[in-house]
Amino acid sequence: MKSHRKELWFHTKRRRELINITPQIREVLAESGVREGLVVVNAMHITASVFINDDEPGLHQDYEDWLERLAPEKPHNQYRHNVGEDNADAHMKRQVMGREVVVAVTGGELDFGPWEQIFYGEFDGRRRKRVLVKIIGE
Amino acid sequence: MKSHRKELWFHTKRRRELINITPQIREVLAESGVREGLVVVNAMHITASVFINDDEPGLHQDYEDWLERLAPEKPHNQYRHNVGEDNADAHMKRQVMGREVVVAVTGGELDFGPWEQIFYGEFDGRRRKRVLVKIIGE
Amino acid sequence: MKSHRKELWFHTKRRRELINITPQIREVLAESGVREGLVVVNAMHITASVFINDDEPGLHQDYEDWLERLAPEKPHNQYRHNVGEDNADAHMKRQVMGREVVVAVTGGELDFGPWEQIFYGEFDGRRRKRVLVKIIGE
Repeated sequence: MKSHRKELWFHTKRRRELINITPQIREVLAESGVREGLVVVNAMHITASVFINDDEPGLHQDYEDWLERLAPEKPHNQYRHNVGEDNADAHMKRQVMGREVVVAVTGGELDFGPWEQIFYGEFDGRRRKRVLVKIIGE
Repeated sequence: MKSHRKELWFHTKRRRELINITPQIREVLAESGVREGLVVVNAMHITASVFINDDEPGLHQDYEDWLERLAPEKPHNQYRHNVGEDNADAHMKRQVMGREVVVAVTGGELDFGPWEQIFYGEFDGRRRKRVLVKIIGE
Repeated sequence: MKSHRKELWFHTKRRRELINITPQIREVLAESGVREGLVVVNAMHITASVFINDDEPGLHQDYEDWLERLAPEKPHNQYRHNVGEDNADAHMKRQVMGREVVVAVTGGELDFGPWEQIFYGEFDGRRRKRVLVKIIGE
């Protein structure tokens, strides 16, 4: 069994951003030499997400509105966590969108349907944060 | 390490349906010959879900109502994604329910609690769509 | 390939509780002898969750309020599932928080960011329920 590990770093300009990281994951997979196995991609921070969906700007704006409706950022003092913090909403948004994805590797490629793309979902950005890529297989 | 891959195809009559796919996953596991390892089952489309919960019709109707409350289908024009599309809500419902499940394989069986069942959650159906089953182990 | 399996049992006093199970998962990982691989930790019951987030009491109260807002327990008769049951809300809360986490193992340790902690999320407790830990790797 082979295993391969890499960290990807992000530093967004805005508090909330969705970044397509599929090309980087493909590079890490190529480096690993794994042909059959699994890739786990996860946010290493608890106010961010890794998820799979569509790379369509209208949808990304819809996600912003929808997540703000389900777990609004403001007023900050509606959350007990926000004593010296202001990011309770980000801990909730990340639960809706998920921490990690597990993707099959087949023939050395991400085994994807036609529109699947991997995103880093930042909900409390403007600082350096990490994503972990772990690949196991043969 | 063994690996095994299979696609399952679905074509629902209704826009939204929940289908118990546990028997098919058990068949694919038996084909694989894997005794110890992991099964990943994921929707290959970004408006569908694979999740684990209870096979109880009342609960499935509750899910329908609840997901419609969290991310209503209509009016279609409330979503920026819906320019030439009408399925933005399905992209959200799938995030709540999840893209994939990862199930332990022990002694050649799905290592499940008493009520766990695997479902395909279709949120934009009436066309052919796929689920991927990937098994790794020994 | 090595594989290792353990069940953890919980019996909460309250209907809903969040329990940090990271120390137990570290013990099971040490027992397994796996240095490189994956750990899957999942609720074996469909009204409970395993998720990764922050061990901060204010946030946990915020999760309680937020999940009650998204999927209120009462009135019980708002749900079709609640015929002889009263836990439909728990089936929904668990979908928001997730069934399982998949964590990379690197150098014999959980490969975690600075604040990641694994929680058992009980949404219909006061009875014995289980979590499965499955580890594969080398």
